[in-house]
Amino acid sequence: MNNTIVFQSDFGLVDGAVSAMEGVSLQVDESIKIHHLTHDITPYNIFEASYRLFQTVEYWPSGTVFVSVVDPGVGSKRKSVVALTKDNHYIVTPDNGTLTHLSKYVGITAIREISETTNRRKNTEASYTFHGRDVYAYTGARLASGKITFEEVGPELSVDHIIELPTFNTIITDDSLTGAIDILDVRFGSLWTSITREEFLKLNIDYGQRLEVTIYNNDNLVYQNTVIYGKSFADVRIGAPIVYVNSVYRMGVAINQGSFAKAYNIGVGAQWTIELKKIS
Amino acid sequence: MNNTIVFQSDFGLVDGAVSAMEGVSLQVDESIKIHHLTHDITPYNIFEASYRLFQTVEYWPSGTVFVSVVDPGVGSKRKSVVALTKDNHYIVTPDNGTLTHLSKYVGITAIREISETTNRRKNTEASYTFHGRDVYAYTGARLASGKITFEEVGPELSVDHIIELPTFNTIITDDSLTGAIDILDVRFGSLWTSITREEFLKLNIDYGQRLEVTIYNNDNLVYQNTVIYGKSFADVRIGAPIVYVNSVYRMGVAINQGSFAKAYNIGVGAQWTIELKKIS
Amino acid sequence: MNNTIVFQSDFGLVDGAVSAMEGVSLQVDESIKIHHLTHDITPYNIFEASYRLFQTVEYWPSGTVFVSVVDPGVGSKRKSVVALTKDNHYIVTPDNGTLTHLSKYVGITAIREISETTNRRKNTEASYTFHGRDVYAYTGARLASGKITFEEVGPELSVDHIIELPTFNTIITDDSLTGAIDILDVRFGSLWTSITREEFLKLNIDYGQRLEVTIYNNDNLVYQNTVIYGKSFADVRIGAPIVYVNSVYRMGVAINQGSFAKAYNIGVGAQWTIELKKIS
Repeated sequence: MNNTIVFQSDFGLVDGAVSAMEGVSLQVDESIKIHHLTHDITPYNIFEASYRLFQTVEYWPSGTVFVSVVDPGVGSKRKSVVALTKDNHYIVTPDNGTLTHLSKYVGITAIREISETTNRRKNTEASYTFHGRDVYAYTGARLASGKITFEEVGPELSVDHIIELPTFNTIITDDSLTGAIDILDVRFGSLWTSITREEFLKLNIDYGQRLEVTIYNNDNLVYQNTVIYGKSFADVRIGAPIVYVNSVYRMGVAINQGSFAKAYNIGVGAQWTIELKKIS
Repeated sequence: MNNTIVFQSDFGLVDGAVSAMEGVSLQVDESIKIHHLTHDITPYNIFEASYRLFQTVEYWPSGTVFVSVVDPGVGSKRKSVVALTKDNHYIVTPDNGTLTHLSKYVGITAIREISETTNRRKNTEASYTFHGRDVYAYTGARLASGKITFEEVGPELSVDHIIELPTFNTIITDDSLTGAIDILDVRFGSLWTSITREEFLKLNIDYGQRLEVTIYNNDNLVYQNTVIYGKSFADVRIGAPIVYVNSVYRMGVAINQGSFAKAYNIGVGAQWTIELKKIS
Repeated sequence: MNNTIVFQSDFGLVDGAVSAMEGVSLQVDESIKIHHLTHDITPYNIFEASYRLFQTVEYWPSGTVFVSVVDPGVGSKRKSVVALTKDNHYIVTPDNGTLTHLSKYVGITAIREISETTNRRKNTEASYTFHGRDVYAYTGARLASGKITFEEVGPELSVDHIIELPTFNTIITDDSLTGAIDILDVRFGSLWTSITREEFLKLNIDYGQRLEVTIYNNDNLVYQNTVIYGKSFADVRIGAPIVYVNSVYRMGVAINQGSFAKAYNIGVGAQWTIELKKIS
């Protein structure tokens, strides 16, 4: 633990919810350093919460505590947990799928259920709708500041039973890869696919070479064209499409200084598949 | 004072206004810790500013200085003040109604007018439109860092003359409560009413029981239905409405994983009244 | 250097990009203090990035390091640099016009090109699209924390060759000033013009006096009316227009508690010109 908390939620920053979580953390220990991942996760979108953690956690110092509250099941039987990753980051979250990507691509080495008898803010028993403030921020702050150890979070659970959302396994042929469009680089409208750089390199396509890109929404063809594989956006003209390796080492599709997602009305999720095919 | 400032405004985060306020604070003392409540208060909406302070101030450590700048009257005769709450939080703000909820529901024990001869940033005399930077951030930082005492803010005013906006007093009958829809849980579209949990408990309605909810916009009936009273959203099916105690211990109305406000086109303010009625 | 970084970008806060930059900075040195200017620069809008730096940098303590990443040319031959201003602030940025306003109105005393052999995060060689994380945040953090000196950033460049975007020089006659509408006070819809307070004072117009305001979009007349010159918004009635000195000491045009930009559908840039004329 390094006395640092990073918050993520789907609360937005328009009201006082995030500020209340910050305040609770500082009431636990005024020396805690507070940062934010994002609070603009699409409401209730657990896949997005999981992906954003995967995208950023590794860039933070060892021992950082992440508190992620995308919690459509607040008040249900879903468990409140703290997970420890292989790289020594702690994730405080409902166990509702938020740990999917970290579990698959980084590794969770231990997980504990938050005991609400000891790790719930006092005098909040009449409030059942804001566990982010009363349980998650409070527990995250106590853990980050060393007021409790990881063991004192509560009983250990099996990492084999972590709730995971389905993810897409790349379909590989001799000259093609098919994956899903996982998420957007929101502001710029680039597509981030589930196809990894390692998988792509096996196609032996050189920078500057064209490949065929085909996008389906379920069974409906949405886009099909040949696109240049480049290092970075500036390798193609302004307004031209490009296939590239994105900042999390997955294959992306973009338009240089434009929005690919808006241009072709493309969405995200397992029903949005993309094929990258070598031109012979 | 604990060397911590929390900023609130209606400036948004799109331009440099908030950053200038942060910089001014750190020029006063580089060790000051800066946090934010929200900067997305609806422009000029003093009621919202007052409510967001009420919603969050108590969760912050004693001695924290809040700087709230929703100031449609900048340049008018409205006073610039620092208020001290019963729980030992300081609020730097124009005295324009921003202190309404803290004054009514928490208590203001003292209030002082900011003396601009001593507590205005030097060389800003030609700037009349950004008191947030030149007076409020500057004074808040000097107070938070101990450069000035509360007494050195300026002359004491009477707490009896704090400007308060009208709020709705619950109309109580044997089997019903009528209040106003004060504000929304913006991202999720839940209604937060002015009716307190204490008032509601007197109706003796059990979890799982239905009650009648009626909403008016002035004299126009907008919504009338029976709704379950539950602990938390998961107590009803996805898409179903629920009456619940919200995180500030007032009665809320929501749709589980939906938006009640959008579904029925509901707004906020004293003209939006809501009746909760026991079904006999 | 004072161990403080201020980030600006056009990334938005919806995904994990800004958080990754923060994490990288803290991996360099956990004691670094991180703040933000804005991340809502219009995508690819270098003029806006330049203006927001000009608007805020001077309010920050001497030695603060700004990292500004509005980088439509990422992957092109544009240089990555660190500039030192006359007031001793450091700006880490692509040299693509982001330094325009600081160079013209504050002064850049030295500039160095970032050497990517020493000042690039290790093991990021396969990532070509996120210099913000791999080069700018990393270099900014090393500089802010004293891990490298300004000299160790890389080879010195000539301040005479800093890339500057065109700006509008005020056209001055005996009784009028013509400038451009540089930017908006976004949330409130006020126009911020390129005409300085010093230039305006020469017209000898007193507070409360009217002047003629004429706005063109290229050759099309968009607005023409007489408007009061006031100290602050409260000097005119709610809903009335006002000419005033804004918080960066340029002439602004606003509607008290309304949006001038929305009311008359006004945009920004060199093609939007405004004339302020004395009424004889």
